[in-house]
Amino acid sequence: MKKLITGGLITTATDMYEADILIENGKIVQIGKNLAADGAEIVDATGQYVMPGGIDPHTHLDMPFNNTVTDDDWESGTIAAAFGGTTTILDFCLSAGEEKLTTAVDKWHEKAKGKSAIDYGFHLMISDLTPETETELPLLLEREGITSVKVFMAYAKEFQATDRTLFKAFKIAKDMNAVVMVHCENGSVIDELVEEAKQAGQTAPIYHALTRPAELEGEATKRAIELAHIAGAKLYVVHVTCKEALDEIISAREKGYDVYGETCPPYLTLDQSALAQPGFEGAKYVWSPPLRPKYHQEHLWNALKAKQLQTIGSDQCSFSFNGKKQLGLHDFSKIPNGGPFIEDRFSILYSEGVAKGRISIHDFVDMISTSAAKIFGLYPQKGTIAVGSDADIVIFDPTVKREISAETHHMNVDYNAYEGWEVTGEPISVLVRGEYVIKNKQFVGVVGSGKYIKRALKVKPKTAETINA
Amino acid sequence: MKKLITGGLITTATDMYEADILIENGKIVQIGKNLAADGAEIVDATGQYVMPGGIDPHTHLDMPFNNTVTDDDWESGTIAAAFGGTTTILDFCLSAGEEKLTTAVDKWHEKAKGKSAIDYGFHLMISDLTPETETELPLLLEREGITSVKVFMAYAKEFQATDRTLFKAFKIAKDMNAVVMVHCENGSVIDELVEEAKQAGQTAPIYHALTRPAELEGEATKRAIELAHIAGAKLYVVHVTCKEALDEIISAREKGYDVYGETCPPYLTLDQSALAQPGFEGAKYVWSPPLRPKYHQEHLWNALKAKQLQTIGSDQCSFSFNGKKQLGLHDFSKIPNGGPFIEDRFSILYSEGVAKGRISIHDFVDMISTSAAKIFGLYPQKGTIAVGSDADIVIFDPTVKREISAETHHMNVDYNAYEGWEVTGEPISVLVRGEYVIKNKQFVGVVGSGKYIKRALKVKPKTAETINA
Amino acid sequence: MKKLITGGLITTATDMYEADILIENGKIVQIGKNLAADGAEIVDATGQYVMPGGIDPHTHLDMPFNNTVTDDDWESGTIAAAFGGTTTILDFCLSAGEEKLTTAVDKWHEKAKGKSAIDYGFHLMISDLTPETETELPLLLEREGITSVKVFMAYAKEFQATDRTLFKAFKIAKDMNAVVMVHCENGSVIDELVEEAKQAGQTAPIYHALTRPAELEGEATKRAIELAHIAGAKLYVVHVTCKEALDEIISAREKGYDVYGETCPPYLTLDQSALAQPGFEGAKYVWSPPLRPKYHQEHLWNALKAKQLQTIGSDQCSFSFNGKKQLGLHDFSKIPNGGPFIEDRFSILYSEGVAKGRISIHDFVDMISTSAAKIFGLYPQKGTIAVGSDADIVIFDPTVKREISAETHHMNVDYNAYEGWEVTGEPISVLVRGEYVIKNKQFVGVVGSGKYIKRALKVKPKTAETINA
Amino acid sequence: MKKLITGGLITTATDMYEADILIENGKIVQIGKNLAADGAEIVDATGQYVMPGGIDPHTHLDMPFNNTVTDDDWESGTIAAAFGGTTTILDFCLSAGEEKLTTAVDKWHEKAKGKSAIDYGFHLMISDLTPETETELPLLLEREGITSVKVFMAYAKEFQATDRTLFKAFKIAKDMNAVVMVHCENGSVIDELVEEAKQAGQTAPIYHALTRPAELEGEATKRAIELAHIAGAKLYVVHVTCKEALDEIISAREKGYDVYGETCPPYLTLDQSALAQPGFEGAKYVWSPPLRPKYHQEHLWNALKAKQLQTIGSDQCSFSFNGKKQLGLHDFSKIPNGGPFIEDRFSILYSEGVAKGRISIHDFVDMISTSAAKIFGLYPQKGTIAVGSDADIVIFDPTVKREISAETHHMNVDYNAYEGWEVTGEPISVLVRGEYVIKNKQFVGVVGSGKYIKRALKVKPKTAETINA
Ligand SMILES: [Zn+2]
Ligand SMILES: [Zn+2]
Ligand SMILES: [Zn+2]
Ligand SMILES: [Zn+2]
Ligand SMILES: [Zn+2]
Ligand SMILES: [Zn+2]
Ligand SMILES: [Zn+2]
Ligand SMILES: [Zn+2]
Repeated sequence: MKKLITGGLITTATDMYEADILIENGKIVQIGKNLAADGAEIVDATGQYVMPGGIDPHTHLDMPFNNTVTDDDWESGTIAAAFGGTTTILDFCLSAGEEKLTTAVDKWHEKAKGKSAIDYGFHLMISDLTPETETELPLLLEREGITSVKVFMAYAKEFQATDRTLFKAFKIAKDMNAVVMVHCENGSVIDELVEEAKQAGQTAPIYHALTRPAELEGEATKRAIELAHIAGAKLYVVHVTCKEALDEIISAREKGYDVYGETCPPYLTLDQSALAQPGFEGAKYVWSPPLRPKYHQEHLWNALKAKQLQTIGSDQCSFSFNGKKQLGLHDFSKIPNGGPFIEDRFSILYSEGVAKGRISIHDFVDMISTSAAKIFGLYPQKGTIAVGSDADIVIFDPTVKREISAETHHMNVDYNAYEGWEVTGEPISVLVRGEYVIKNKQFVGVVGSGKYIKRALKVKPKTAETINA
Repeated sequence: MKKLITGGLITTATDMYEADILIENGKIVQIGKNLAADGAEIVDATGQYVMPGGIDPHTHLDMPFNNTVTDDDWESGTIAAAFGGTTTILDFCLSAGEEKLTTAVDKWHEKAKGKSAIDYGFHLMISDLTPETETELPLLLEREGITSVKVFMAYAKEFQATDRTLFKAFKIAKDMNAVVMVHCENGSVIDELVEEAKQAGQTAPIYHALTRPAELEGEATKRAIELAHIAGAKLYVVHVTCKEALDEIISAREKGYDVYGETCPPYLTLDQSALAQPGFEGAKYVWSPPLRPKYHQEHLWNALKAKQLQTIGSDQCSFSFNGKKQLGLHDFSKIPNGGPFIEDRFSILYSEGVAKGRISIHDFVDMISTSAAKIFGLYPQKGTIAVGSDADIVIFDPTVKREISAETHHMNVDYNAYEGWEVTGEPISVLVRGEYVIKNKQFVGVVGSGKYIKRALKVKPKTAETINA
Repeated sequence: MKKLITGGLITTATDMYEADILIENGKIVQIGKNLAADGAEIVDATGQYVMPGGIDPHTHLDMPFNNTVTDDDWESGTIAAAFGGTTTILDFCLSAGEEKLTTAVDKWHEKAKGKSAIDYGFHLMISDLTPETETELPLLLEREGITSVKVFMAYAKEFQATDRTLFKAFKIAKDMNAVVMVHCENGSVIDELVEEAKQAGQTAPIYHALTRPAELEGEATKRAIELAHIAGAKLYVVHVTCKEALDEIISAREKGYDVYGETCPPYLTLDQSALAQPGFEGAKYVWSPPLRPKYHQEHLWNALKAKQLQTIGSDQCSFSFNGKKQLGLHDFSKIPNGGPFIEDRFSILYSEGVAKGRISIHDFVDMISTSAAKIFGLYPQKGTIAVGSDADIVIFDPTVKREISAETHHMNVDYNAYEGWEVTGEPISVLVRGEYVIKNKQFVGVVGSGKYIKRALKVKPKTAETINA
Repeated sequence: MKKLITGGLITTATDMYEADILIENGKIVQIGKNLAADGAEIVDATGQYVMPGGIDPHTHLDMPFNNTVTDDDWESGTIAAAFGGTTTILDFCLSAGEEKLTTAVDKWHEKAKGKSAIDYGFHLMISDLTPETETELPLLLEREGITSVKVFMAYAKEFQATDRTLFKAFKIAKDMNAVVMVHCENGSVIDELVEEAKQAGQTAPIYHALTRPAELEGEATKRAIELAHIAGAKLYVVHVTCKEALDEIISAREKGYDVYGETCPPYLTLDQSALAQPGFEGAKYVWSPPLRPKYHQEHLWNALKAKQLQTIGSDQCSFSFNGKKQLGLHDFSKIPNGGPFIEDRFSILYSEGVAKGRISIHDFVDMISTSAAKIFGLYPQKGTIAVGSDADIVIFDPTVKREISAETHHMNVDYNAYEGWEVTGEPISVLVRGEYVIKNKQFVGVVGSGKYIKRALKVKPKTAETINA
């Protein structure tokens, strides 16, 4: 019932200090020097970082896509996440134009129920807004405690919303104090470019990247920014990949706009040349937006350092190379879009970011956990180590070296985009609400024990008036 | 010996939660729910914010300037600071070209000793670097625990360094891992403009602003940025006032440069029209850089919100209107430059920033305390509320309304630039290292009890290797 | 048959010098000092500028719009143009989704035939590209000598093309070496904003401006720029009104993109407050994009001075206040969009631009004539004063003062947006292909004598190889 | 006495047309179709471009530098210039702090007299402004018809002016309507970097580039821009080499500042790797600012295309490799700065610019001749082909291929930085004031026949009032 974490170096988005943590009923109740055990189970964290559990704001588990489905469902996906130091995920609940939004949310609850090993919530995706769904949407957000709506400007044939729908979504979100997450690429033009390429007989994976130029991400990002601004809504740009999009985000923030940006490990560390590998190997690196030429990485790291991007999503969306990716063997446009990153998000950012001196450890915690908690209304229940918060905790050894490999990873997919990479630092034990999910690098959690988290975006910070009330 | 702060809402740069704080020997030793008093003196903070004490990184106490001296010395200045929620100041130790730097530091210790009611440190100002002072500087920084050097690009006749000296300062700072603080205005051209104005018979206070155009701040800021970057040094731009300078800082940070920016309450809230008041009233608003046209304020607030500026300094430098400011009655260039802000820095930023919804409460704490602690090497001893840190604490009532007035303020100066302004929120009690300095809005501290703080800038964040060592 | 213009100051986009001009068969055949008359009719231009005739690249004559039609047709419109120093216009030939493009062009020939008093050409507007029109378009451009296609991103219900159509238009234009002219505003979002305003009971003319924010022009401009760039096509942004759009154009040109920008007299000289006048007066100033807050004007003038905008269009599209504008008396969205500027384009730019020192006289000639000739393939037949060119000439008295008024103007519309403005400089005589159209401020031309000009965009400048060939 | 140029394609900054040119008394008196020879000497230009003679606004002939002197004096230099299509040069008259400015100008007249084969003028360089020279300067400019002052922000030990002197120069120039040309690099910091490099034993030519980073050019450019703007003066930035400087110029022009920029052939075509060649070969490429990494070239070409840079200077300053450059064999800082470009400026820009499609032929003429004429007050006497102008004419064959080589060039220097480059296009014949200097690629001019040109900057374009007067 009680646990005492001793000897670790507590590390938050602001602080780093040595102290013990007392946990009761899944909550942190005390932090101090040499706390008395008093019957609590001791968790020895000597010489290790004690961090808030990672929050992954961008996952696609058990997601249908183009006549196939991702290989990781809510069981394998959340177990892998836990191994990687993630204790909460926010997954995209996809809706389709014709069905009620409630139906979509019900379906998503169904997928997660009994399977999730960690806590979770949903973003609600909208592709069209009819008079019916316009009425339904606010009620559903309220009922389900959903504070984030997702809109696609890409995938012309599948998910893409019109500017009109996007703008309406911003207006509803503004009224609800929700945030709108947008996939920013101009899908209509991409569609034309893909057609052109196919007519020119260009079938290899690299054409996936070449038919989705960075300029179209920059364009769509600018469009989303201005529409959100006019509607008075908060915008969260998912998976920013390039200088073109960054420039728009930075310039908007400079003007005081409420714009947040997320990037993902592969954009920080891999580049477009991965798609140009001989044979069909490049298919392993096909997702959207695509990997970019290498020079973009530096811009992304700088933006993280300068706090112009706030969060790191995995954009987990795994399709095995054999079987699924190979659907596009003769036509790059048939390669299912997505990659497996839910497990290594935390490690890659720590190893490439903190260990290499590009970002501070505090910025790391902020990006991997705290910012997402605040933007999406999980805070202060999640996203920090503080008295009163859920005891979602990662005990992280910053010295250990680990080689990433599909042989050893826990995702249900037959390759890893980082195969053979050595990373510095590894989560040793992971607790969700005070219970071990990972203990000494072993999964000891309970499938299905993850809780759905209802969220609420408060308009303003708590003030003394409200405390006193 | 022990204190227990109960019932407050602990508020840091990241977190906000209700908990008690146990203090022993001036340090925070425990934070938790319903901590046992166990003989500790109870500090009831029910319904109030419990914040880290303010750190003012930019003060000039007992400072000679143009044949006069500031009206606040280390006694009146630090008492006023304490009333305003500030528990540590970093004051500029001025050196002169001809003397040894050690002499300057000794003189500054002399000024503070027996007078300071709160903790303090020094930035060391350099106007020239001779072979002697180039040798002396690193040793002195080491010995005195000084991690910050100040260089002026303005005040052509008094303090201005050449580009060569500025560049050398950056190189030494780089080797010492110190930060260089720069007053960025092109003093040589300002001097010419002042001469021009005087020859044209322009004597009124407004000409102080008109002879120091924002373009010259932008120019100098760009120059400092590039010189620091080439030298590999960290730059801290003091008192940023205008879009021109901001643009350079934002653009540098976008490129990954190690540039920090500070602004000050008056630039956020007052404007150039204050200098154009009838008669000599404008002299109360003469400091450098000058107040700017009103539209700059929005840019500064946006930059704070987007974390492109990191800190708020008071630039306290008080000269009474009667007597001192009036030295410039017939010649604006003889008005002593400076204003009294050490007391209201905290309140103004809270009231205009947080209460008006321009910045979050966490950003507020960061800007008023935590960031300065980190940039100048006071952290983790100062700048946060965490186990192990000094119990420098402000108990702040965010609901109270207070009218600012020279009648009631505690600075030793006969006017207040905010005379008649109503602010929301006020520090009720202030503790330094666990001892009351202000208790229920009364000064109960001990003059001379403030400690000089030696600082050390660590090259990298502490890692597990170093913990284990 | 022959004319000799004597004593004038010949003024081109580059040069200014005193010389005589000999005209034969409508062409300039000789320029020199003291040319022999030799039977030619003498045109005395002593003390006056002799400039190339104005080319107005943006007119809407006899254009249907929302159940009404513009008040100026090809007779009144071209006569007014001639009075204003314009000798060639390029009018927008509107097509509708359902009909063949040829039908549209035929209809436009019909409108102009027998009526135009000056030379003319057509831009071909496209709202949709079906497989049929995709095939038809290149052939039609070739046959008709049309080098410019127009696409609307606004007017959601009438003309707006999808991004897909816009992109296809760019691709076809690229292959044909044509230029694509784009009206850049996000029509879908404007439509939503208009609906919102109407639902809020906002009916006055000012809501026309308020529902079309500058951000939506900036957004669409960026979108058009990137789509053109990816397609490899030349883009001409019509009627640029605001800093938001300018920033995109400047940034694109800085990257070497082939982007041209046009602005119009009202955006340089009038502002949004005109729509906010009491009563329904503001309706006179309703066109799209709308007039902007005044500070945009300075940005536009600066862009002209720095050659970042190249041309001045009138966007002539006249609707009388009584009768037509009043269709929107109770609903701003029913006010026909457009204003009468074909006559005063030249004078306004000269008077506000050259006479007030904002642009040079050479830049003026370039913007009012030469640049449009080059961009749209009229050059060297039109757009300059050089041996071999058409003798389209304006004799301009730069000293005369004239008051603009609906009482005296020659457009068939009951108001003038510049009513009561005094302008400096006035065309005294105007020749088209060597024949007077205006002589001593009187119309002496022949209705219907204007010629349709077939154009051809050459890929490269003529080289010696081609001369020798 | 009279010449008739027949059959050519007259090409100006605006126009291109086939016509004959009649020349009398060194002036163009008539341009027309099939002009009567009437006793004039026929110059057959069939199939060739007939362009205005090149104006080189940036040369250093017979210039002392660091105990040596350039190898080309006014005889060899101007003959080489003529071969390269240049008919007027503007050379920098260097002054020294201690001497009267008149003395400097007298000395420069002495150097040129009896030697110059083409027309010329002087820019007057200022390194210090004492009360004496402040008084002398305006009078001297007036007397000598000099409209351009040069100030160095670099060469700390030789020429560098303080910010104060630079600002004063701007103020005087403003009153005189002169333009100030500035060499923008931060000389003080460069000096420090050079010292550092030398202390580190870095002696090779590449360290010349590495000790003069582009950031220091950007910094100084910004500084010059703001100082000029505050003074209200026109600024001409000489030899712009990099994106850093360009960004400042573009941004200033966007704000309406009167800023012009010049670049030089090597910055457009050669790059920093030239200095890193094995052995001492790199010394041939040592000049200031240095060659930059290759990616800067694209930015410079784009800026030319977008008219953000206006002119091309040669920055001719030749030092033979054997003897002179070798002074720096063991110390890069002793290599005389400069290269031989006066002869190939025209060809390189034509071949790399026009023939390769980067700029239009009209832009070429503007940059190589017309713009410089206008900026420096030579227009309309020089810089165009128009009735009344001097018959300074280049007959240029755009089809011929030529290999550049020190073996065949006419400069008095033992190497050519473009050795072995093939260029397209070559001046065949060159006339100055109607007299052949080059005829069929042979020098037929008269040494010493070049005239000193007094210049006058007019405040405003000529208006009808002034014509009539
Ligand atoms: Zn996506
Ligand atoms: Zn995704
Ligand atoms: Zn200062
Ligand atoms: Zn200060
Ligand atoms: Zn339009
Ligand atoms: Zn139009
Ligand atoms: Zn130079
Ligand atoms: Zn030079």
